[in-house]
Amino acid sequence: MADAFDLIVLGGGPAGASGAAAAGALGKRVALVEKAGMLGGAGINTGTIPSKTLRETSLVLSGWRSRELFGVDLSLRREATISDFMRHEKNVTAAVRERMRRNLDARGVTRFRGVGRFIDPHTVEILENEKKIVLRGEKILIATGSAPFRPTEFPFDDNRVHDSDEVLEITTMPKKLVVIGGGVIGSEYAGTFAALGVEVHLVDGRDSLMPFLDAEISHGLAKAMASNGVQFHWKERVTACDASQAEDVVLSLSSGAKLTCDGVLVCAGRQSNTADLDLDAAGIIPGKRGLVPVNEHYQSAAPHIYAAGDVIGAPALAATGIEQARVAVHHAFESTRKSDLATILPTGIYTIPEASMAGETEAALREKGVEVIVGRARYADVARGDIIGDEAGFLKLIFRREDLRLLGVHVMGEQATELVHIGLIALLAEGDADLFNRACFNYPTLGDLYKYATYDAIMQREAGA
Amino acid sequence: MADAFDLIVLGGGPAGASGAAAAGALGKRVALVEKAGMLGGAGINTGTIPSKTLRETSLVLSGWRSRELFGVDLSLRREATISDFMRHEKNVTAAVRERMRRNLDARGVTRFRGVGRFIDPHTVEILENEKKIVLRGEKILIATGSAPFRPTEFPFDDNRVHDSDEVLEITTMPKKLVVIGGGVIGSEYAGTFAALGVEVHLVDGRDSLMPFLDAEISHGLAKAMASNGVQFHWKERVTACDASQAEDVVLSLSSGAKLTCDGVLVCAGRQSNTADLDLDAAGIIPGKRGLVPVNEHYQSAAPHIYAAGDVIGAPALAATGIEQARVAVHHAFESTRKSDLATILPTGIYTIPEASMAGETEAALREKGVEVIVGRARYADVARGDIIGDEAGFLKLIFRREDLRLLGVHVMGEQATELVHIGLIALLAEGDADLFNRACFNYPTLGDLYKYATYDAIMQREAGA
Repeated sequence: MADAFDLIVLGGGPAGASGAAAAGALGKRVALVEKAGMLGGAGINTGTIPSKTLRETSLVLSGWRSRELFGVDLSLRREATISDFMRHEKNVTAAVRERMRRNLDARGVTRFRGVGRFIDPHTVEILENEKKIVLRGEKILIATGSAPFRPTEFPFDDNRVHDSDEVLEITTMPKKLVVIGGGVIGSEYAGTFAALGVEVHLVDGRDSLMPFLDAEISHGLAKAMASNGVQFHWKERVTACDASQAEDVVLSLSSGAKLTCDGVLVCAGRQSNTADLDLDAAGIIPGKRGLVPVNEHYQSAAPHIYAAGDVIGAPALAATGIEQARVAVHHAFESTRKSDLATILPTGIYTIPEASMAGETEAALREKGVEVIVGRARYADVARGDIIGDEAGFLKLIFRREDLRLLGVHVMGEQATELVHIGLIALLAEGDADLFNRACFNYPTLGDLYKYATYDAIMQREAGA
Repeated sequence: MADAFDLIVLGGGPAGASGAAAAGALGKRVALVEKAGMLGGAGINTGTIPSKTLRETSLVLSGWRSRELFGVDLSLRREATISDFMRHEKNVTAAVRERMRRNLDARGVTRFRGVGRFIDPHTVEILENEKKIVLRGEKILIATGSAPFRPTEFPFDDNRVHDSDEVLEITTMPKKLVVIGGGVIGSEYAGTFAALGVEVHLVDGRDSLMPFLDAEISHGLAKAMASNGVQFHWKERVTACDASQAEDVVLSLSSGAKLTCDGVLVCAGRQSNTADLDLDAAGIIPGKRGLVPVNEHYQSAAPHIYAAGDVIGAPALAATGIEQARVAVHHAFESTRKSDLATILPTGIYTIPEASMAGETEAALREKGVEVIVGRARYADVARGDIIGDEAGFLKLIFRREDLRLLGVHVMGEQATELVHIGLIALLAEGDADLFNRACFNYPTLGDLYKYATYDAIMQREAGA
């Protein structure tokens, strides 16, 4: 006899928990199946939150800001142990998990611990400590997330070679760390470890950082990271990783160069956690690296089975996973409360400095033949920039030339991931330059950059640029 | 022979400089008259920027954040001298002044140093080191700012009794400071000195902090400041201030209580700097505390004479003064580039924690008979709140019940003065709950609070609240 639910959610990360809570709030009977002993998934336990917390901690405990701004070193680096840096992270992730648990309980979600797999399109079997439980779901949401992809050339059993999950469990700080891959995760950790005083090298097969970013942001970020001590090795691939010596790990690069180090962090993308799901029993054929193909409503090939979060692929951010799951659940139960996910999703990158974007890049617009005017303002142009001492940061606004409608917002600098939201709301509200021109921003704030960048665009237009 | 200008600007603070630069950008001949040896006025030199910079410095150098978050004290308080705290402030104000100067030069603004006064409605005489210069202006902008109001009961010649201008020049830190007046300036300095480890008492004749704020924010702020060590003395007035003893200053309060201390900071409001202007020669009659009455275009009783910034009274913030001056100048020269100041001005208060608002308070709306639904989200409800360790912060959104149109945004907590801008743009774009409901915010950010507060409002409405 199978327990019957309106919705079975597979996976208890940000997407799964958000979908389960949303269905609970609609009065549905919901089962949530999580294989780990705790809620949170990669977003809370091994990815998003821990890396961001560690980033903040490293900036404070290394005395980063105080050295830059006040000429005094408040660092306790010499005495700091790894556990100093990790303690706050443990507190934060515990708090987030606990809030998630309370929210699910408040919505009446029944939780199951174990690995779920499909028996047929409506039936899931859970194996929990030898015990089998069978659940039947009217609708099913797959939100099992992703795990680091591990290229075979790296000996991950060596305790100096890490993927991005393991790196949070290191017990001694490396002196020289080589990060493989300049995507989001690699770039974030490269900056954090550099702030901690580690010599950091970043190896990437391309010639720029995160090419999905607006080119000015990508270049500005690489420059800022380099000035923070990160050493880049562009257009290089690792052909061999030799961890046979007790002293150093030796990496051979495609150019023939060698890099020796005492720590390697491999950030070579992620793969969806679908191998154990028996997707074929549900009539679903996974795509590349195990991802579940979905339509615009997040429905898989089986229309009553939805998927959301990392498991469906890019952008694979906690923020978007949470939204996708809500939209999926509201579609599944025909609720109008959450009809549509906003078509414009922000991207937030917690490098040092931060980078963030919403809307289109300049290159994408030019490719589409849209005539644009670009307004720029540097953090160094406003008083708040002086106060926080951020000299590299800048905001770039892209307007359609014809009517100065806002089409893209790109920020690099402190608080960029927050600052982008001002532009995001303007984009969603279909605002134009006049919206910022009419606005009055608090002084001294970074928000004021929107005004200056807008003036820049207006002046250029009047000058006939 | 008088030099003839299209515009004479009296005062080189944020409002004056912004008006002068705006007119210069329109191709006008502009004279700017500043009595101090340097540009910047109260906004840059004695008020806004220095107090905000000192606030940031105190938070970093006192180890405030590191104690709260990491259980380690990175404070160098014992060895810190006042100059440690002031050095960064000097750098910042110098940078802001220099940028202002370059901007005025780039716009071709002619600067005069001296005290200007009206000879007739179009003529200003400047006295600069015994030398008289006469200028004639087609239009005139009064932006002479304000200065601390000094109640007669305080002996300001004693070096333990300060107004808010002088307090930045103290050379030894008081052990026990009494702040008189819980307005914006008093509340800001009370928090900064408490963060520096000073015992701070705040005396106010009313029973709540800054009553123009939404009541929940005002109460929340007082509570948070109290937990940071500020001791409040409500409904008390100082009847006498005895500085005759070498040891302690003794304040007598209206209740009969006495407060002894070694520092007094009087923040009893400000008065407009118009006493030396001979306003009557221009046909202008100043109002209470010297302020210049203006209409919605910032025109005084003489239509070709405009006034902007602190000199016209509330809100008397740098941000609003800058905008008012721009609007005045564009009106004066019939330019359409800046037709209207946004009707919704944000208020940013740099207390610890910060507070900020845009739009209407709940009390004001209820008074007007508008039915509302209030959505709330606490910093402690989102992961970014855990990361930064802000447990008291919250966002309050006020929607019209009928159609969930956004009417008011109120924030208390870290970054509140930045965070309010997301809501400000939504207010200016006439957005409703659906705008935030459709939005996806970066994770983990404080911006996400908008989503949670919106959900709270939507759920209440569905529950028939």
